[in-house]
Amino acid sequence: MLTNDELARWDRESFFHPSTHLGQFARGEAPQRIVTGGEGCYITDRDGNRLLDAFAGLYCVNVGYGRPEIAQAIADQAHQLAYYHAYAGHGSEAAITLAQMVMDRAPQGMARVYFGLSGSDANETNIKLVWYYNNILGRPKKKKIISRWRGYHGSGLMTGSLTGLQLFHAKFDLPLDQVIHTEAPYYFRRPDAAMSESDFVGHCVAQLEALIAEHGADTIAAFIGEPVLGTGGIVPPPAGYWPAIQEVLDRHDILLIADEVVTGFGRLGTMFGSDHYGMRPDLITSAKGLTSAYAPLSASIVGQRVWDVLARGTDENGVMGHGWTYSAHPIGAAAGVANLKLIDSLGLVGNAGTVGAYLNDRMQAALGDHPHVGEVRGEGMLCAVELVADRDARRFFDASEGTGAKVVAAMLKRGVIARAMPQGDILGFAPPLCLTREEADRIVAVTTEAVAEVLG
Amino acid sequence: MLTNDELARWDRESFFHPSTHLGQFARGEAPQRIVTGGEGCYITDRDGNRLLDAFAGLYCVNVGYGRPEIAQAIADQAHQLAYYHAYAGHGSEAAITLAQMVMDRAPQGMARVYFGLSGSDANETNIKLVWYYNNILGRPKKKKIISRWRGYHGSGLMTGSLTGLQLFHAKFDLPLDQVIHTEAPYYFRRPDAAMSESDFVGHCVAQLEALIAEHGADTIAAFIGEPVLGTGGIVPPPAGYWPAIQEVLDRHDILLIADEVVTGFGRLGTMFGSDHYGMRPDLITSAKGLTSAYAPLSASIVGQRVWDVLARGTDENGVMGHGWTYSAHPIGAAAGVANLKLIDSLGLVGNAGTVGAYLNDRMQAALGDHPHVGEVRGEGMLCAVELVADRDARRFFDASEGTGAKVVAAMLKRGVIARAMPQGDILGFAPPLCLTREEADRIVAVTTEAVAEVLG
Repeated sequence: MLTNDELARWDRESFFHPSTHLGQFARGEAPQRIVTGGEGCYITDRDGNRLLDAFAGLYCVNVGYGRPEIAQAIADQAHQLAYYHAYAGHGSEAAITLAQMVMDRAPQGMARVYFGLSGSDANETNIKLVWYYNNILGRPKKKKIISRWRGYHGSGLMTGSLTGLQLFHAKFDLPLDQVIHTEAPYYFRRPDAAMSESDFVGHCVAQLEALIAEHGADTIAAFIGEPVLGTGGIVPPPAGYWPAIQEVLDRHDILLIADEVVTGFGRLGTMFGSDHYGMRPDLITSAKGLTSAYAPLSASIVGQRVWDVLARGTDENGVMGHGWTYSAHPIGAAAGVANLKLIDSLGLVGNAGTVGAYLNDRMQAALGDHPHVGEVRGEGMLCAVELVADRDARRFFDASEGTGAKVVAAMLKRGVIARAMPQGDILGFAPPLCLTREEADRIVAVTTEAVAEVLG
Repeated sequence: MLTNDELARWDRESFFHPSTHLGQFARGEAPQRIVTGGEGCYITDRDGNRLLDAFAGLYCVNVGYGRPEIAQAIADQAHQLAYYHAYAGHGSEAAITLAQMVMDRAPQGMARVYFGLSGSDANETNIKLVWYYNNILGRPKKKKIISRWRGYHGSGLMTGSLTGLQLFHAKFDLPLDQVIHTEAPYYFRRPDAAMSESDFVGHCVAQLEALIAEHGADTIAAFIGEPVLGTGGIVPPPAGYWPAIQEVLDRHDILLIADEVVTGFGRLGTMFGSDHYGMRPDLITSAKGLTSAYAPLSASIVGQRVWDVLARGTDENGVMGHGWTYSAHPIGAAAGVANLKLIDSLGLVGNAGTVGAYLNDRMQAALGDHPHVGEVRGEGMLCAVELVADRDARRFFDASEGTGAKVVAAMLKRGVIARAMPQGDILGFAPPLCLTREEADRIVAVTTEAVAEVLG
């Protein structure tokens, strides 16, 4: 067996961690945590800490940690058939079953499911499908993708371009030219404090219309958006936003890609966010909640009007040259089947709605009036607390102070994991969907203490 | 339990298969195969077929099917800790251990390992790192990537651009502008039959030099290549190719990315293809053989000179905004650890060299003189048979005849899976590294029969 010291050293010397300060980590100046287990909403680490994970990993462990039903499904699949590819009509019982289960749960009008591995690769797939679609329709110029500032759609070259956050663009030469950005539906940060919510929706629509006019609708293929902005700050849309946007897209024959990586499979208290907000997507991106992260798996769910053109495309051009070696990996598919069954049997979609509402209510009651809290907001099992220097003037803290990160660190000392969202001083909460009211109370209590410690 | 008929119907109605003719599959005109298990070099399907898989899935099941050691490692990890993220210095024992094991096996000069999920995403990571590197060095214009025609580097938007095959470009608007292509080191298809192998290397170098001169070395960041061209036709380089290319790259300060997704971890009879051919890569892309496909995992192995600049970059700019939720997934990492141990304990790198040479020798002896075989070629446990209409004139079959696909279909009837490579009529062989001489004999015998059936 390894000694603990060797493991710690190897970690510093050999392992390139994602989203990490590489220099500080290598020199031992940034913290290291080796996670060893988990159960329900809690994880444990090698140093004996037991932490309440109010962010469910990266809002993905929706059923909670340590579910033996999913672990056993993975184990059984690994022993029976760990892998075969899905190219050229090959498949496994697990992948086919999961495709059908996804279709049974998907919003109306969906036709097929393509399985990848991550939200990023599902968005790659979706952009490729949109381009192919317009080529088959004889509209070779209709290719640009509209995303929103503060959207999060991945961290690849194209998907990081879709993402509208500075951290994912700076020093990487993103966004690429094919992506253009429009206003984020972020009412708290509206340009003029006097704007009503409804006026602000009108403003978002006007911005979108102006962008379409500037580029020409004949150059714009699709609009991509998360039902609720996630990594950009956990921001539910203002009332009426999605129907108003949908109307613009329909009028200009622009496809809608709903990025449901965070919201898919229950997080908002409904199976999909598209249903929650009355969106009518042509393509849906999903990942995280599909397997609750027990194994990597993503799904691009393709609507009927796109599918019909893709199928025609292969009739005209032969086999479609798109595939990952690990598309529809049997281990991921088996995890997905067990996970969706567990979501049903435990009633987690309902629990996300009720306990999520409780968490949001309690957080609002505890911190809504704090002088350094600009807004408490959320939907379903998503909640955010936005910290401000001056509440009335909507003045933000200087980013270099790292106020959000300080509060999150003060929470961690108290045994609760929240996330300092990357742009702004925003405390993010996205607990497992199995959260109890008692656990919600503890999250709110610790948040309140930490805010008091850092900001008084 | 499901009835077989339901599964077959769900497959046609709900599952979007990669690299498939969508229209034909949906209508039931293209075959369907539901794979249920495997052992060693054999897979079994739901209809009771047992097939010798001479392509190891998609050249990825390097240790063979049904290895209980890897299945058990996955099962144990799933029960202990299926998932936690690796952001901000978090990790698991499995991921850290695997990072160290990869470093212990990597070519000289490597510094860190970043784990993703697929070869495509590892190439995304590598391109992002190359761009970041040149931004930190203050060379914002030095960004283009040179790839080779017939290279295969993935099927995303940027990685499909790196790929130099028509199937992956047509109707997808690829390649993107940032990628430029140079001559494939494909001696059999040299422009002039009279060229010696050494003259052809000189020709490839001259083509590369001309491309660099055309664009300017100050605009070119990196050159990416597979040690042996894979999906482009399974083409080992002509003698002296890599040292000659390396010299050009060094002179122009162009980084070398070795795409070892196929060749990494033993396929050529050496741990890495870079060592096999004396390449000195700055970044290495790996996936497939890292876990033998038992779970999705990729690795970007970063060389010291790039790593030093990345670390400096985070000192200057803070946390690097790059990460996948499933980076360093514990299930994949546990599979990787067990897989690399098994490769060692079974001596599979050595077996790939010896039995691979045997397979190539026997295939050459059986088909090398056939009037419709232009070339039998290979290296380690890779082998290709290129079919031609006229051997002396190097005249190829018309693509619409599907000659390669017909031979592969004739092999499948006889219980052996080979792959018709997508561009040209090339039979591809990449069996598990545990192949025996008896299995090699069967592959050669069946190939010979099938060639005779289709071509006389």
